[in-house]
Amino acid sequence: MAVGQATAVAPANIAFVKYWGVQDAALTLPYNESISMNLDRCLTTTSVQFDSGLETDEVVLKLHGQNELVAAGRPLERVVAQLDRVRSLANVQSRARVRSTNNFPSDAGIASSAAAFAALTTAAATALGLQLSDQELSVLTRRSGSGSACRSIPSGFVHWRNDGTDQGSYAGSVAPPTHWALADVVAVVDPGVKSVTSADNHRLVATSPYFAVRLQEVAGRVDQALTAIRDRDLGQLGIICEGDAVSMHVVAMTAQPPTFYWNAGTMAVIHALRRWRNEGLFGYFTIDAGPNVHVICDQRAAAEMDNRLRSLPEVQFTIVNGPGPGARVIEAGASAMRAEGSRQE
Amino acid sequence: MAVGQATAVAPANIAFVKYWGVQDAALTLPYNESISMNLDRCLTTTSVQFDSGLETDEVVLKLHGQNELVAAGRPLERVVAQLDRVRSLANVQSRARVRSTNNFPSDAGIASSAAAFAALTTAAATALGLQLSDQELSVLTRRSGSGSACRSIPSGFVHWRNDGTDQGSYAGSVAPPTHWALADVVAVVDPGVKSVTSADNHRLVATSPYFAVRLQEVAGRVDQALTAIRDRDLGQLGIICEGDAVSMHVVAMTAQPPTFYWNAGTMAVIHALRRWRNEGLFGYFTIDAGPNVHVICDQRAAAEMDNRLRSLPEVQFTIVNGPGPGARVIEAGASAMRAEGSRQE
Repeated sequence: MAVGQATAVAPANIAFVKYWGVQDAALTLPYNESISMNLDRCLTTTSVQFDSGLETDEVVLKLHGQNELVAAGRPLERVVAQLDRVRSLANVQSRARVRSTNNFPSDAGIASSAAAFAALTTAAATALGLQLSDQELSVLTRRSGSGSACRSIPSGFVHWRNDGTDQGSYAGSVAPPTHWALADVVAVVDPGVKSVTSADNHRLVATSPYFAVRLQEVAGRVDQALTAIRDRDLGQLGIICEGDAVSMHVVAMTAQPPTFYWNAGTMAVIHALRRWRNEGLFGYFTIDAGPNVHVICDQRAAAEMDNRLRSLPEVQFTIVNGPGPGARVIEAGASAMRAEGSRQE
Repeated sequence: MAVGQATAVAPANIAFVKYWGVQDAALTLPYNESISMNLDRCLTTTSVQFDSGLETDEVVLKLHGQNELVAAGRPLERVVAQLDRVRSLANVQSRARVRSTNNFPSDAGIASSAAAFAALTTAAATALGLQLSDQELSVLTRRSGSGSACRSIPSGFVHWRNDGTDQGSYAGSVAPPTHWALADVVAVVDPGVKSVTSADNHRLVATSPYFAVRLQEVAGRVDQALTAIRDRDLGQLGIICEGDAVSMHVVAMTAQPPTFYWNAGTMAVIHALRRWRNEGLFGYFTIDAGPNVHVICDQRAAAEMDNRLRSLPEVQFTIVNGPGPGARVIEAGASAMRAEGSRQE
């Protein structure tokens, strides 16, 4: 039943084996499968309210530490295009009011667009009464263009499967959040906006002479990561995380034009982790399309790791995450639609 | 005629296309050819005095900013092994006194061993009266185990050719220092000793899945670098330098075990150069087996580049180099041998 209005929360996720490179940009089909963990502390909350009285979609973004802004240009187009996909499935024409709030810095290597499109798709599908399985919702979310958003739908530890078809490219849970008390301590070294979006680089991968080698490696890494998660083997997962992060950034640094996401703070954290491991504190880096470093460690070591990371002059602040649930609806109802609608007059 | 004693000066060199990976460690035969420029300001001066009264070789090193030290262990063994090669060619048994002085920091990404073995070999061969061509001297120097030392023998801009044989793997000049008013502004971000020697990593290259791709690229880069030098085309040389440096460090970072030579200062300089290029100041990075950044630019831009680099908090000091001559004998004579010999009694 279409309730007209819904609010969903979705987590950012950190990939142990990265999505890097889009094989089919129209369908957002990746070159390779990937493995991730949803983060329990990095969340986007999105309300979607369909209203037949609206002439256009209205999108308000409240990013971390910034004032509300009315979306325009490319960000608005991407939201509208995703709403169109949901409307098309529901056979609905109404435009929508969208309000989205992030509790963590955007566009700095924490996958904010993943959380945003997972929350948007979940809220919109619920508001329009679509009865979708997690798998169908993941497919629909993937098609937003933020491919890794599909990994923010299922819970805990996640495997984005891909057989090269639209229906066969979706994320599913391989273990719930309670399976493994793992931590991701995000060391934010620069919360600024990066100058090359990951979307651009997903299209540039084929210009790197190293991309073919990455593809040869990555299938094996997916299997190894699944085994490491099953066995709760931090040392093995750490080798996979670091090797895959380096491999992804190798492709970025050797693409035409090259992108250097790493900065001074990135290298400071990498070298600190390597020193600390020699001292018996085990944390392993992974890095998304930005300079911040995600430090994967045991939750029992997270407080000490967090203290040490915050002591580095290059680290501005940290966010300590455990594994978290996937996207979920936190509120839905036709009454809200009317209430919001009346305010609009 | 054997004069018994000689002093030689040899430059460090900076490679535009790197030597990275040894195919035959016994003969120090590289996997690929390389291209470099000798530096006019980073020099090693080495005196060698053969004395039949000595029972062992005595090697004294005076490194930049450090007290004299008597070499022992592996560094001594490498010097003795190279002296043995020279003695074998000259059919001489005498041991030698060696004194070597560096005017730049050792083991921090400036090829100090290259300058050292080029100076040692040149001085020792002269002292023993060997009449060697530059090509023969380059072959002999290469066999020291510091392969890139062979590039410090000829003058100016240098091509290390390699056909996979001992006699066919040597460096020759492709243009004199006067050909191109190029600068190498070395931004020293950490003069400390690196924890993994390049010799180790020359043997580890085959453990990197990316090494084969590097080898495919590098032959083309050698040709492009020769063309860029011939045409004095800084923009083209810059692309080659940066691409090849990234490629070399990709192999190091993806070897087993990986080595991360880059540190916070390295990334700070890389990003600064990219900003400055957008402002019209053209400098291009290359990085050897250490964190320091060699900034290749026109000599007319060198003062401004130097000022800007020194303004970065991560840069401790700089060394501004032009292209320089290769190894040369600055003093030789039997009298010195006797004089030194008498002092020894």
